[in-house]
Amino acid sequence: MKVPRPVIKRMPVYYRCLERLKNEGVKYVSSQKLARRLHLKDSQIRKDLSHFGKFGKRGVGYEVESLLNDITKILGLHKQWKVIVVGAGNIGKAIARFRALEKNNFKVVAVFDTDKRKIGTELLPGLKILDIANLRDFVSRERADLAILAVPASSAQAVANDLQKAGIRGILCFAPVTLSCAIPVEYVDITAFLKTLAYSVLTEKYNM
Amino acid sequence: MKVPRPVIKRMPVYYRCLERLKNEGVKYVSSQKLARRLHLKDSQIRKDLSHFGKFGKRGVGYEVESLLNDITKILGLHKQWKVIVVGAGNIGKAIARFRALEKNNFKVVAVFDTDKRKIGTELLPGLKILDIANLRDFVSRERADLAILAVPASSAQAVANDLQKAGIRGILCFAPVTLSCAIPVEYVDITAFLKTLAYSVLTEKYNM
Repeated sequence: MKVPRPVIKRMPVYYRCLERLKNEGVKYVSSQKLARRLHLKDSQIRKDLSHFGKFGKRGVGYEVESLLNDITKILGLHKQWKVIVVGAGNIGKAIARFRALEKNNFKVVAVFDTDKRKIGTELLPGLKILDIANLRDFVSRERADLAILAVPASSAQAVANDLQKAGIRGILCFAPVTLSCAIPVEYVDITAFLKTLAYSVLTEKYNM
Repeated sequence: MKVPRPVIKRMPVYYRCLERLKNEGVKYVSSQKLARRLHLKDSQIRKDLSHFGKFGKRGVGYEVESLLNDITKILGLHKQWKVIVVGAGNIGKAIARFRALEKNNFKVVAVFDTDKRKIGTELLPGLKILDIANLRDFVSRERADLAILAVPASSAQAVANDLQKAGIRGILCFAPVTLSCAIPVEYVDITAFLKTLAYSVLTEKYNM
């Protein structure tokens, strides 16, 4: 049975919250307490988790570390994912340098660009910008899993086609386009988030 | 009647697609053609738009420019939004320099940080990093509308509280936290997107 997409989108939020609770030394947490932290309904949390098995005990709640381990496995974060970044503009460089990725088991193994002035420069110790002409060879040889696409909208589909042929298994797309792909794609369109936010601000005002 | 959140999230996608069609010189588009471009169902698109009024003509479709103008007004993009960025780390700086924001009528008017070595440096001509101590004064004086929060998770709630007191109307949060706020908040947790992507890759594989 396919898990609904909103449920899958909330799993990383539960993961993040449980990780924080673990760091705070909390051993057990109820769905009510999780719900208060996350501004969700406790029934929602119990229903979401029930898609993946039986968790928690009535009257005791969830054992934080055990549930965190289970969600780690559900999301496939117990193994390291090899990630490449395509496009070394402002956004691509920022993401390649973003330490939170490696902490979460997403290891950026290479950054690619077309700009001859950028190729060969080092973004981090051991992380150089490579020529996009070597993209397919690199992905096949290094068995990279995921690609972060931070190229202009006009070239995004062509790069996505190359990535698929090279064997990339999923794409996180920052370009403001809808891609035609046979592999999973997630979109992060920053201006789209701002537009949704603008709408909420306007309608909240009207509701007052 | 409140418009469902998934509908609101799709409106910027329609906007983006119509803008592209307009640039391509297309005058009319059917819901079927939009649906093919966006990998959605045409009935979904018609239902989504029906939340905001009556658009399009049977047999003719939507007039691209007219629908684009209508969505522009629905999302409140016919006026410029003043945006501040809080946190001048990798992500904050990349967003402050991101030209797509201004093109979409989101004008970054200031960037704030606590780091004395960063304060006073210029990110773009006319866009300096300011001392976070001046955040509240600046927001009230300049009537900034929205804040992009790119600070560490540990300080995100405190900054969000300051922003609310200063009169900010909405927050786009890049910190991996759930904020307690009385104003609208949108979240962009990049590692959460990668986790959702990882899950999709694993389950697509199982489905094969």
